[in-house]
Amino acid sequence: MGKDYSIGIDLGGTNLRVALVSRDGLVVDRTKVSSSGDLMASLTSAIQSLFNSGAGGIGLAVPGLVDAKRQRILRAPNLSILETIDVSSKLTARFGVPVFLENDANSAALGEMYSGAGKELDTFVLLTLGTGIGGAVIYKRKLLDVAGELGHIVVEANGRQCGCGARGCLEAYCSSRAIVEITREAMDSGRPTSLGLLGSPVELAGATGGCHSLQAITPKIIHEHSLRGDTLATEVLKQAGWYLGIGIANYINVFSPEAVVLTGGLTGAWDVYVKEAIRSASERAFKTLFQKAGIIRGIHGDNAGVIGAASMAFLQGSVES
Amino acid sequence: MGKDYSIGIDLGGTNLRVALVSRDGLVVDRTKVSSSGDLMASLTSAIQSLFNSGAGGIGLAVPGLVDAKRQRILRAPNLSILETIDVSSKLTARFGVPVFLENDANSAALGEMYSGAGKELDTFVLLTLGTGIGGAVIYKRKLLDVAGELGHIVVEANGRQCGCGARGCLEAYCSSRAIVEITREAMDSGRPTSLGLLGSPVELAGATGGCHSLQAITPKIIHEHSLRGDTLATEVLKQAGWYLGIGIANYINVFSPEAVVLTGGLTGAWDVYVKEAIRSASERAFKTLFQKAGIIRGIHGDNAGVIGAASMAFLQGSVES
Repeated sequence: MGKDYSIGIDLGGTNLRVALVSRDGLVVDRTKVSSSGDLMASLTSAIQSLFNSGAGGIGLAVPGLVDAKRQRILRAPNLSILETIDVSSKLTARFGVPVFLENDANSAALGEMYSGAGKELDTFVLLTLGTGIGGAVIYKRKLLDVAGELGHIVVEANGRQCGCGARGCLEAYCSSRAIVEITREAMDSGRPTSLGLLGSPVELAGATGGCHSLQAITPKIIHEHSLRGDTLATEVLKQAGWYLGIGIANYINVFSPEAVVLTGGLTGAWDVYVKEAIRSASERAFKTLFQKAGIIRGIHGDNAGVIGAASMAFLQGSVES
Repeated sequence: MGKDYSIGIDLGGTNLRVALVSRDGLVVDRTKVSSSGDLMASLTSAIQSLFNSGAGGIGLAVPGLVDAKRQRILRAPNLSILETIDVSSKLTARFGVPVFLENDANSAALGEMYSGAGKELDTFVLLTLGTGIGGAVIYKRKLLDVAGELGHIVVEANGRQCGCGARGCLEAYCSSRAIVEITREAMDSGRPTSLGLLGSPVELAGATGGCHSLQAITPKIIHEHSLRGDTLATEVLKQAGWYLGIGIANYINVFSPEAVVLTGGLTGAWDVYVKEAIRSASERAFKTLFQKAGIIRGIHGDNAGVIGAASMAFLQGSVES
C-alpha cells in the first residue's frame, strides 16, 4: 500500500495556503498561514495540523524563481526570507518525506493538468491573470522547463511602461495592476464614469454607502460598474481583454495547444474581459490552430497551486503506490 | 557496420536542393533540381545520382505543414503538387530506405542542432529570416512538436497587415517582403534615397550601369545602399531589425534558450539589421535571460535544411550504427 495523500503549499499572497491533497487531486483538508512572523514555524505548525500517516510528500508553489532540480529558491521578491532558508531540507528533516519546489504558475499548471481543466489534455498553455500575468506550458503531459515569462512578451512595440523595465508587455495591458492604472489615467483625464462617485454595489448595499477613494478601485469594482452600464469601466475591461486575446493568439500560433487555460482573479470578469479576449484571439490566430484550441477557465480556482504542488509527489513517483 | 550516409532534400525555393550527407553532418555531394516539370521524376533522378550503398535514409524538408508522425504533407502552398503525392511511400518503394518528412524551418533547426551552431546546445530558438519569418524550437536536444509559427506573433497590436490575415505580426515588419514593401512605401511618399536612382553597386560596376526598376529592389540592394550611406535604406533596415529584436526578446522571455540562431538571406545584413535587433532585444528581454542567450548566426547557411532532413535518418536510429 502506498501513500494516498500529499501536502500542497502555495506561498503566494499574504495568506499562505496549506492543503492536504488526495491522490485523485482533491483538497481534503486545508488551513491558512500568515506570511508575517516566523515563516518556518508557522508553516511547520500548519503542515503538522494536516499531516497524517497517509501523507507521503510536501510540495511548495513559490512566487519566484525556483531551481526545481536542485530544490533551491533563487528569487522570491515578495517573500525574500525564502531565499535564505533551505526550506526543502528543513521540511524533509522535520517530516521525513520528500519535498518538492516549483514556481507558482508552473504549480497551477500542474494542478490543472493533474485533476483540473487539463486532465484530458496533452498540451496546453496556462495563463494566470492577476496582479501580474504569469503562465506555464504543459507539453505532452509535462511541464515545459523554460522561463515561461508569458506575461512579458511585447505586444505593443512602443507601448506602456511595464514593471519589468520593458515597454508594451502583455502584462502592461491586461493585468489587474494595468487595468486599475489605465482606469485611473482615464479618470484623471476627466472621462465621465460612475467610478469614484459611487461605491461598489456591494459597498452601496452596506450601511455606510458613499464614496470610495481612487486607491480602493479594483478590477472587481470596475467590473461591477461595467455590469451596471458604466462606459469607461466597460471600455477599460474590453481593451484589456483585446490585448489579452493578442497574447493568447501569439501562444496559439507558437504552441498549437489543445487549450489555453485561464486562471486568476480576473477570470471573474469573464463576460466582458475574457469574452473580448476570445474575440480578439479569433481575429489574430491562424484559423485552424484557433479552432483546435479551446479557451477555457481553470477549474481549481485558487486551489490550483496547492493541488499542483502536492501533485509533484504523486507524479514523480516518490509516493509509492 | 551501419550506414554512414543519408540523402537530404530541401523542397523550398525554385531550385530544390538534394544532398548526400555524412553521419557527421557534412554535405559530401549535392545537386539541384528544378521545381517545374515532373517533380517526382526529377527528384528520383537526382537522388539516384547521389545514392550509394552507404545511404540508409532519405529526409525531405518541406515548405509547408507536415504531419511528421504519419509522414504526410498536409499543406505546401508553393508546391501544392506535394499535397497529392505520397512522396514518402514512392521514395521508399524506389530506394528501399526509410523516408522522413519534416517542415523546412524544423529541418533547418535539426541541421543546426546536428552539426551546426546548435551542436553543443540543449535548447535554442531558430529563426529563418527570408521572404517570410519562420522558426523552430529545439528543447533539450529535441524538436518541439508545436505549430512554431514564430513569425506570426503580434508585436504591434494595431500594426501592418500581415499576409496571414492578422495585423502587426513580426513577419509584417522584418521579413524580406516587409522590408521591400516598407522601402517602396517610403519612396512613394517621396523620401529622398539613392534607391531607384542608382543601380546596386554591383550593377554599377558592370558595363550596363543605370537605373533599376522598383520591382528589382531587394533587401540585398537596400543593404548595399545602406552601406554606401543612404539614410532611408539604413532606416528601413534598422526599423526591421528593431522589430526583429522585439520578437527575439519575446522568445527569450518565454523559452530562456541558450541561443537564438538566425538563418536565412537577411543575415547578410548582419551589421545593420541584426545588430539593431540585438540592441533592441537587450532592451526588452529579462536581463538574466538575455545574458544567457547568445544571438548567433547559423553556420550551415542554405544547407541547414538538407543536413537537418538527412539527420533524421541518423537521429531516429533508422540507420543502424
